Amino acid sequence: MRISIFRRAHFNAAHRLHNPNWSDEKNAEVYGLCNNANYHGHNYELIVRVTGEVDQESGYLMDLKVLSDLIKEHVEKVFDHKNLNLDIPYFKDVIPSTENFCYLIYTIMDEAVGPDKDVQITLYETPRNYVQYPAS
Amino acid sequence: MRISIFRRAHFNAAHRLHNPNWSDEKNAEVYGLCNNANYHGHNYELIVRVTGEVDQESGYLMDLKVLSDLIKEHVEKVFDHKNLNLDIPYFKDVIPSTENFCYLIYTIMDEAVGPDKDVQITLYETPRNYVQYPAS
Amino acid sequence: MRISIFRRAHFNAAHRLHNPNWSDEKNAEVYGLCNNANYHGHNYELIVRVTGEVDQESGYLMDLKVLSDLIKEHVEKVFDHKNLNLDIPYFKDVIPSTENFCYLIYTIMDEAVGPDKDVQITLYETPRNYVQYPAS
Amino acid sequence: MRISIFRRAHFNAAHRLHNPNWSDEKNAEVYGLCNNANYHGHNYELIVRVTGEVDQESGYLMDLKVLSDLIKEHVEKVFDHKNLNLDIPYFKDVIPSTENFCYLIYTIMDEAVGPDKDVQITLYETPRNYVQYPAS
Amino acid sequence: MRISIFRRAHFNAAHRLHNPNWSDEKNAEVYGLCNNANYHGHNYELIVRVTGEVDQESGYLMDLKVLSDLIKEHVEKVFDHKNLNLDIPYFKDVIPSTENFCYLIYTIMDEAVGPDKDVQITLYETPRNYVQYPAS
Amino acid sequence: MRISIFRRAHFNAAHRLHNPNWSDEKNAEVYGLCNNANYHGHNYELIVRVTGEVDQESGYLMDLKVLSDLIKEHVEKVFDHKNLNLDIPYFKDVIPSTENFCYLIYTIMDEAVGPDKDVQITLYETPRNYVQYPAS
Repeated sequence: MRISIFRRAHFNAAHRLHNPNWSDEKNAEVYGLCNNANYHGHNYELIVRVTGEVDQESGYLMDLKVLSDLIKEHVEKVFDHKNLNLDIPYFKDVIPSTENFCYLIYTIMDEAVGPDKDVQITLYETPRNYVQYPAS
Repeated sequence: MRISIFRRAHFNAAHRLHNPNWSDEKNAEVYGLCNNANYHGHNYELIVRVTGEVDQESGYLMDLKVLSDLIKEHVEKVFDHKNLNLDIPYFKDVIPSTENFCYLIYTIMDEAVGPDKDVQITLYETPRNYVQYPAS
Repeated sequence: MRISIFRRAHFNAAHRLHNPNWSDEKNAEVYGLCNNANYHGHNYELIVRVTGEVDQESGYLMDLKVLSDLIKEHVEKVFDHKNLNLDIPYFKDVIPSTENFCYLIYTIMDEAVGPDKDVQITLYETPRNYVQYPAS
Repeated sequence: MRISIFRRAHFNAAHRLHNPNWSDEKNAEVYGLCNNANYHGHNYELIVRVTGEVDQESGYLMDLKVLSDLIKEHVEKVFDHKNLNLDIPYFKDVIPSTENFCYLIYTIMDEAVGPDKDVQITLYETPRNYVQYPAS
Repeated sequence: MRISIFRRAHFNAAHRLHNPNWSDEKNAEVYGLCNNANYHGHNYELIVRVTGEVDQESGYLMDLKVLSDLIKEHVEKVFDHKNLNLDIPYFKDVIPSTENFCYLIYTIMDEAVGPDKDVQITLYETPRNYVQYPAS
Repeated sequence: MRISIFRRAHFNAAHRLHNPNWSDEKNAEVYGLCNNANYHGHNYELIVRVTGEVDQESGYLMDLKVLSDLIKEHVEKVFDHKNLNLDIPYFKDVIPSTENFCYLIYTIMDEAVGPDKDVQITLYETPRNYVQYPAS
């Protein structure tokens, strides 16, 4: 009986899209307003999906309180009210696009949840723009 | 031309998570506040997905009014304003977790919709916690 | 500079509408499914509005973190995952309708926030049914 | 690194469901209120999913501003504030059901986005009724 | 104890904004796409607020089931899946703008609810555009 | 016939709460995570309410397209993808709290809309925290 459970979470952060290997003109052309040198920011909405087998004794795939605590510890504490470019070492050499941010959260939550379950991350940068990894 | 249609519905119910084979301590530890002997409750949001072929004459996979009526008859009439533990015989021996409740609604709607179409159920216990069966 | 700030919160509870001074027939007639003797339940969405003057030094009417903590301590801890009829002494002699529940939360939050600010409560029993006190 | 990005858009239109090969009685029976000869209408919410590989230099699967502009040019400009039956030649001989409309938008956006990426369309006719093509 | 209760409802309709006393040019200039001769349409979201005194015996200001039935009978049955210009006599000589439509629903519901309670209508033409009467 | 119309808009920005007249300790104590020297950010949701008399000829209080364009020109163009502290001169000497930001947008939109109509601003910093000026 393979099932998926989902938990939504919320945090906010500042970021800037800028590729140091490009000219200022190319950065402005590719990233537009997202290239603002003074940063801008978002309320990120996060959905963590965990897929696996239901434990017959507890009726749980995984306690959603436990999943919620893992998200708080490994994602919210790390990224909430932060500047992705300046406060998060991973984004020293990686563009903090929603695609790359979604992938980073996937690697974090996939390890936190453990090897017997599958994780998929959906990350909303705005209510109209969002990203999902892995693609289903 | 394989397509999916979705219908959202809403109902509310009380329940309690409790495994009679466990001690009170273990029940409190595993289920926390959800173990309250006096019950608590939820507004459940339900999404029924039906997948199949579009009928070329009507342009419908299935009349959404028909699907809505099936949900009203087989799900809302049965569970709305009920106590899952006390009013629903299925939960005599099954923990009414969202996982098990989602699976029960799947078996009900899969039979109601018929063998030539596939059903998937998404069940929200709260806006931040939800479950999907079968996993896609 | 009179301004309002708002904080949303969420909790869930079971309840039953039943007037012990009425016959079973009248209770069924007035309250319908809400009269189920085994209880049913809801996810309550709560909006607390606080109105007053902005403090020029901090730029805050009131720290929303403080307001959020007051709601957690005085509302969520008290009502979340509870049975309103059985677990809340106030509802021994008062019908736990959304109107009466909204008024009770108003009296609690009005005292918690203090005399120099005005409080208004909006309480959603479902996404389509809600109540506001005092009426604006 | 295969990922999906999503963009939501909004437009509104009038339509009528009517099969000219059927009697008036059969049309009324199959389509009910949707058969009103004077048309009715909807706010359509559209989600375009694009799946493919992330470009390592830009960190983008595809610039969401570009995707948003493609939707504006190929979908919103064509369908917004229109009568699907009278203003859209495709629906001369095709029933403008949500299923057929979703498929039409898929063929439009699949060509606009290009052959190296996969497109999936979710089309909401109302907040409670929606359709997805291709089925995932 | 003066309190407000709210009930949300949903219906859809087609309409066209056109003033017969104006030239085609002026109609196009003032109403833009909303002037399309073939009509367009919307999913209207309606919020009916009723304000008055709580009945101490029942705990209700007014049974929300009764309010919901009044909305179904006097608003949904009348306007759902209709063309406002062609199917609703009131709009023979009145522009079916959201402002005028909101006011019409106010007069209908104010009479249906009765003289001892106050009614306020909020009418969403789209999720981003809405109207409220009377202004609070 | 006094009525209100509402228009929702969306933009995002970075900011930091910091009072230069206070010690670092007091700033950290009052503003918590919002005091991060590297900034954080939000998706701001804005609701502009305009109240006045309906024009009998057009059926409009005010063309919502005009209101939408005023918001784009005077609010979105000015604040979207900006750092409130560094890019907006007004916040040189004013704390960019939601209260002060809401008041600033009120003064901008009140002047843009003109003297014969009343403006009220609701500004969401997150889906759970928001502010309204003037208080109604």
